[in-house]
Amino acid sequence: MFATKLKCLRCGAEFPLLTRYRCLKCKGILDVDYDYDAMKKEGVSSQFTMRKGEGMWDFKDFLPVKKESIVTLREGDTPLFHCERLAALLNLSNVYLKDETRNPTGSFKDRPVSCAISKAREEGANTVVTSSSGNGAVAVASYAAKAGMKVIILVPSTTSRNKLLSIVSSGAILVKIKGTYSDCFRVARELSQKYEWINLTSTFLNPFATEGDKTVAYELYQQLNFVPDWILVPVGAGPLLVGIYKGYKELKKLGLVDKLPAMVGVQAKGCAPIVRAFDRGDLEVKAWGIPRTIASGIADPLKGYSDDGTLTLQILRESGGVAVAVDDQNIMESTLKLSSIAGIFAEPTGASSVASLKKLKEKGILKESDTVICMVTGSGFKDTHAIEEHIEIPVTELEPALEKVENFLKQENT
Amino acid sequence: MFATKLKCLRCGAEFPLLTRYRCLKCKGILDVDYDYDAMKKEGVSSQFTMRKGEGMWDFKDFLPVKKESIVTLREGDTPLFHCERLAALLNLSNVYLKDETRNPTGSFKDRPVSCAISKAREEGANTVVTSSSGNGAVAVASYAAKAGMKVIILVPSTTSRNKLLSIVSSGAILVKIKGTYSDCFRVARELSQKYEWINLTSTFLNPFATEGDKTVAYELYQQLNFVPDWILVPVGAGPLLVGIYKGYKELKKLGLVDKLPAMVGVQAKGCAPIVRAFDRGDLEVKAWGIPRTIASGIADPLKGYSDDGTLTLQILRESGGVAVAVDDQNIMESTLKLSSIAGIFAEPTGASSVASLKKLKEKGILKESDTVICMVTGSGFKDTHAIEEHIEIPVTELEPALEKVENFLKQENT
Repeated sequence: MFATKLKCLRCGAEFPLLTRYRCLKCKGILDVDYDYDAMKKEGVSSQFTMRKGEGMWDFKDFLPVKKESIVTLREGDTPLFHCERLAALLNLSNVYLKDETRNPTGSFKDRPVSCAISKAREEGANTVVTSSSGNGAVAVASYAAKAGMKVIILVPSTTSRNKLLSIVSSGAILVKIKGTYSDCFRVARELSQKYEWINLTSTFLNPFATEGDKTVAYELYQQLNFVPDWILVPVGAGPLLVGIYKGYKELKKLGLVDKLPAMVGVQAKGCAPIVRAFDRGDLEVKAWGIPRTIASGIADPLKGYSDDGTLTLQILRESGGVAVAVDDQNIMESTLKLSSIAGIFAEPTGASSVASLKKLKEKGILKESDTVICMVTGSGFKDTHAIEEHIEIPVTELEPALEKVENFLKQENT
Repeated sequence: MFATKLKCLRCGAEFPLLTRYRCLKCKGILDVDYDYDAMKKEGVSSQFTMRKGEGMWDFKDFLPVKKESIVTLREGDTPLFHCERLAALLNLSNVYLKDETRNPTGSFKDRPVSCAISKAREEGANTVVTSSSGNGAVAVASYAAKAGMKVIILVPSTTSRNKLLSIVSSGAILVKIKGTYSDCFRVARELSQKYEWINLTSTFLNPFATEGDKTVAYELYQQLNFVPDWILVPVGAGPLLVGIYKGYKELKKLGLVDKLPAMVGVQAKGCAPIVRAFDRGDLEVKAWGIPRTIASGIADPLKGYSDDGTLTLQILRESGGVAVAVDDQNIMESTLKLSSIAGIFAEPTGASSVASLKKLKEKGILKESDTVICMVTGSGFKDTHAIEEHIEIPVTELEPALEKVENFLKQENT
């Protein structure tokens, strides 16, 4: 294992490689550090050209977990699709879709959860806790089941029924909270502190989670063999965006690439704290009021942890990228476009990256020849009620006769 | 390409390698034939040790489609999990789960549909038609969207809303039929004949579909490096079971394995035409009356195409396997077991293979030391209403305070 320590991203203080949620000195966000010189010496980069069939754990030398501790449902190794028809619609040459709906529980969250729960197992944990309003909770419930760990999941009582169903069926203890996601977040932290249960809440709380996210960069390197100009990421707090950028920085440290992609943070207009700060030129992100958007996966007001948004803001600026907000109508149109052109049934949040293409093109940020990756972060099957309101299912029921069906098809064609 | 012709499995008549649904001479089921000697000479078997990241099309030399015609959402290359906790419950040593929920639209149907629609593209088709009550329809809708083909989908008006939603969102023309699946099947055939639209209906109608199914065998060979004793497959008509067995027979012809697995066909007690024929020692399968089971994916009475069931019956006998029926309660318990032990959220049909383990063990068919593969054929997220009735989601909503949650957890523990 080449991981060496935790390091505070703000003050640089160092800590041993154990689950910890914030810097003891300045409360800054913690990051996992590695011995990159040793990696180079031992030639582990050759792994980027080999597929071993273990998903993101094909890259286990670049992750902070011992081999025997890994808890996996074979997350990662998601496909990358070159989508010519979508590109043509927008007058772009190279639009790629990184299809994260293909992860075990249907979203990219499986990557950070697999990494963080593996570390929890390494540390001997038998109980984990999380707060989430959706994909994160489903992921934690499934991985805890696989690991045989007890798991307590705090969700706002408004969470969608499909998600609750899969959480309960996996045997997790589900706690419904009268309140917002931020309320769940707070109580989960208190439980974690008092009982020393490992907290798998995403955002930047658990430093081992973001490590899972960075494997997207490794896969893109493997799939493309060049560095794309732009990577478009739907962001709530933004650990996926920050993780992918870290992955590319590591590839550069290892001498495998000589440039870095520009990172674009995509938010919904009805909940856009990072975009607001970016547009104003602020140095810090401030919490948003009440989120109003169909993109539930990024409806995160960052209340109580707006520092997380600030880190994402810094990273997208550092990368030469931008933050952009898209409205719900555009998000829904893109959800249907993804389905009818690319054959990918995504949740609205997952399609928001695709929704931002038009605006970025019109603003002149994307040039026709640029190579663009859209992260499609989650599956539509967990969020059918959001899509249901915008789709019309035919009501006519036909008698089972050729003639009846022929007449119906003639009407459809006119 | 090593595929050479279509061959009737009953009378041996040969036909050119073009989409055709039955033997012109005897109406027998058609099968794709290959030049295995040429394969051996050209050493294509070396491909079984390489992963190229193209899912089942890593094995394109063993499939009947030209490279440039392939329509893919990167189906196949699904994970195989060794499930010790499940095995221990049943006093078995080696139970593996082949997780087909991980295919692009959440079921194994993506394999046959990808292969058959690729052939349709090769033949210049621009319209396809299918009849299905579920997973097949969702798969055809998504692949037709990806291929840019017009698609007409006939479903019984009782089909689940989640499935209809994804079909409509992909732009398919959805025709709801007042009637059973068999009615849809018949009208789809009539449409296909009259307008020369390619019929992608599964069962054994389109011979290029079953070819996709056989890639499961190739993957198992790659993942295990030995031939398992038993492969347990949920079966309606049974193309997946027959396809997997064909794949193993090919591996044997190529000199890669020296034995074949015994195939087990698993059906629900409320719709078990193949099991009934097997138990009676019949040579032919007869259609079932009205299916009564929560396992909608295998609720297939085979009305109008019972020959398909007969082929499956022959193959499972040839392999030294058995047919077994499981009841709905057992299926639902196994669905929850899969979720809470293996972290896989399957639809009831997908868990029926796991449900059959206990009975097969008790009957002495499975021995403790045997290696068993359970095919987990489809995801629970498309069939939530079936699971919903058997799960209790907590109703209590708590105030967001540590003490309240602590009290709730104490009650849960007692």
